[in-house]
Amino acid sequence: MTQLVLISRDYDMSHLIPPIQRAAPELKVSLYSTAHAHDAEVAVCWNPPAGAIATLPHLKLVHSIAAGVDNILSDPSLPRVPVCRVVDPHHARRMSEFVTWGVLHFHRQFDRVLANQSKEIWLRPQQSDPSRCTVGIMGLGEIGSPVASDLHRLGFAVRGWARSPKNLPGIDTFAGEHALAPFLQGTDILVCLLPLTKATRGILHARTLGQLRPGAKLIHVGRGEHLVPQDLHAALADGRLGGAIVDVFPNEPLPPGDPFWSAPNLIVTPHMASVASPETIGLQVAQNVRRLVRGEPLDNLVDMARGY
Amino acid sequence: MTQLVLISRDYDMSHLIPPIQRAAPELKVSLYSTAHAHDAEVAVCWNPPAGAIATLPHLKLVHSIAAGVDNILSDPSLPRVPVCRVVDPHHARRMSEFVTWGVLHFHRQFDRVLANQSKEIWLRPQQSDPSRCTVGIMGLGEIGSPVASDLHRLGFAVRGWARSPKNLPGIDTFAGEHALAPFLQGTDILVCLLPLTKATRGILHARTLGQLRPGAKLIHVGRGEHLVPQDLHAALADGRLGGAIVDVFPNEPLPPGDPFWSAPNLIVTPHMASVASPETIGLQVAQNVRRLVRGEPLDNLVDMARGY
Ligand SMILES: NC(=O)c1ccc[n+]([C@@H]2O[C@H](COP(=O)([O-])OP(=O)(O)OC[C@H]3O[C@@H](n4cnc5c(N)ncnc54)[C@H](OP(=O)(O)O)[C@@H]3O)[C@@H](O)[C@H]2O)c1
Ligand SMILES: NC(=O)c1ccc[n+]([C@@H]2O[C@H](COP(=O)([O-])OP(=O)(O)OC[C@H]3O[C@@H](n4cnc5c(N)ncnc54)[C@H](OP(=O)(O)O)[C@@H]3O)[C@@H](O)[C@H]2O)c1
Repeated sequence: MTQLVLISRDYDMSHLIPPIQRAAPELKVSLYSTAHAHDAEVAVCWNPPAGAIATLPHLKLVHSIAAGVDNILSDPSLPRVPVCRVVDPHHARRMSEFVTWGVLHFHRQFDRVLANQSKEIWLRPQQSDPSRCTVGIMGLGEIGSPVASDLHRLGFAVRGWARSPKNLPGIDTFAGEHALAPFLQGTDILVCLLPLTKATRGILHARTLGQLRPGAKLIHVGRGEHLVPQDLHAALADGRLGGAIVDVFPNEPLPPGDPFWSAPNLIVTPHMASVASPETIGLQVAQNVRRLVRGEPLDNLVDMARGY
Repeated sequence: MTQLVLISRDYDMSHLIPPIQRAAPELKVSLYSTAHAHDAEVAVCWNPPAGAIATLPHLKLVHSIAAGVDNILSDPSLPRVPVCRVVDPHHARRMSEFVTWGVLHFHRQFDRVLANQSKEIWLRPQQSDPSRCTVGIMGLGEIGSPVASDLHRLGFAVRGWARSPKNLPGIDTFAGEHALAPFLQGTDILVCLLPLTKATRGILHARTLGQLRPGAKLIHVGRGEHLVPQDLHAALADGRLGGAIVDVFPNEPLPPGDPFWSAPNLIVTPHMASVASPETIGLQVAQNVRRLVRGEPLDNLVDMARGY
């Protein structure tokens, strides 16, 4: 009987036991503990404490419960086993809802209207066609690509940036490091949907934010470490950036008193943009464990060299 | 040479002269004044002062610059000439952006997240599939129908209510007065896109709001007079209604000190949901004036008996 353990240092994973068990009744599923470490062949993780995965002598597979795996790969003692992640159209749809809300929030100037309400000021904002607003998406993967297409369908001018060239109907695409500046230069609303890797850590800093159109907006839904917080605060304070919605932070949950909470024109959201459903996690973990047992190729395998 | 005058008591219509003139160089276009009243055959109106239209002895056509005509038909001295309105897919698209923002605002609980930010509270809201949220659209006309279809495409459970039966793919439709209660009873987010007529004045009152699901939300983008303000305030105060976005008011611009500005869980927007573009207004007015001159049937003619 294959044994599976759930590992996290800060997230209660017990609600994932029933859906995994339903999808694969043949597994033995439990929360991580030293008692269960010896026989575990599969570790299902979110923010595992460094060193925990390495205590499993018979480990054959690490599975993330999310799209991102940075919080797993960052463990220097991670054993050389395959790492898989969750890829799911519903996950992308939830992200698209979040980003659509944010893009409309800025494009239709709800930010100003809400500020005006607190001062009891009636001022109808200028209404402009979405084709005159360029949304730039960093990362055109399983989530970024459908988000880009959805915004294109709403009429926005959409461009995207990835490592490799892409061909997405209606989307202007830019590939590779040298294309980052031209990509940023025409962007009114920047959406970050990159994975966190060595190459993308700190990518949102003073110079890149400064390359956006004056008064541009940021919707940051990648990972906290993509952002250099002081640079964002400075760009908002001096108006180079007109507003931001930030969903991810290096220090989650964001502690009371953190400058993010009260930064001007900045909306803090609690890493809520998109969570894979327990059912999807259960099914995808179950499917990959069966593939492992049968010696078949795994789904949604992370490329360790690229880091995503 | 056909003469056209622009009439409003509170809206500066001078910016509409160039687009009308561009679309129909053969017209003589001016703002309303007693000097121009004698020869005017066409009046283009938004909130005309009562009695003004009746001062035009040679009037043959009244044209609204908007989708709604209630502010024209309410003039008791309105002469018996045809009244036309603006119907335009872009107009419906702008409305759909506004309503989509509002529906996502409530469904993804941005209302709570924004309130939590001001208290520096990190609390991830429950994420649920949009198919579990029923949006009810009152009014399935030129604007309500595409709005309903757009929300259906986003995955929401959408229902609509109109006077006459409708057949809209994927939308549950209800027709006539007796169907109002069952329509309301299953609704989580109510969107009002009705025209203002004798039959719809005051339609959003304590009983109708009370028929919605407990904690339901309201997005009101019809006309101010659809709403009984005290009933809305009471429903928000006692939690029967969980939130509201109100774009239209009987007293616009909403004066400082009005209770709407500070009602709990209520967003005030300054009648901004959708404005027809000056180009569209120019083209549609020009087209209808030419139809009038050639004796052809007019476009988007208002049915005076129905009042819309
Ligand atoms: N806030 C939330 O709730 C939430 C929820 C889900 C996901 N996320 C974030 O979203 C990220 C993306 O998820 P996904 O499933 O779409 O990932 P994915 O399928 O792996 O796609 C990643 C995209 O980023 C591009 N990329 C990676 N490194 C790059 C670089 N150095 N320069 C330029 N482009 C680069 C990739 O380019 P190629 O296509 O050329 O490989 C790819 O298009 C996750 O890693 C996570 O950080 C956040
Ligand atoms: N806030 C803004 O910025 C803004 C902008 C544009 C429009 N609006 C508002 O939106 C309204 C709708 O515009 P539209 O172009 O879609 O109008 P429309 O094409 O005339 O459609 C009106 C709809 O309401 C239904 N209706 C009318 N009276 C009814 C009643 N007594 N009971 C049930 N249903 C009734 C009609 O039913 P039938 O189909 O059976 O006739 C029709 O479906 C305008 O009148 C205006 O008030 C607001």
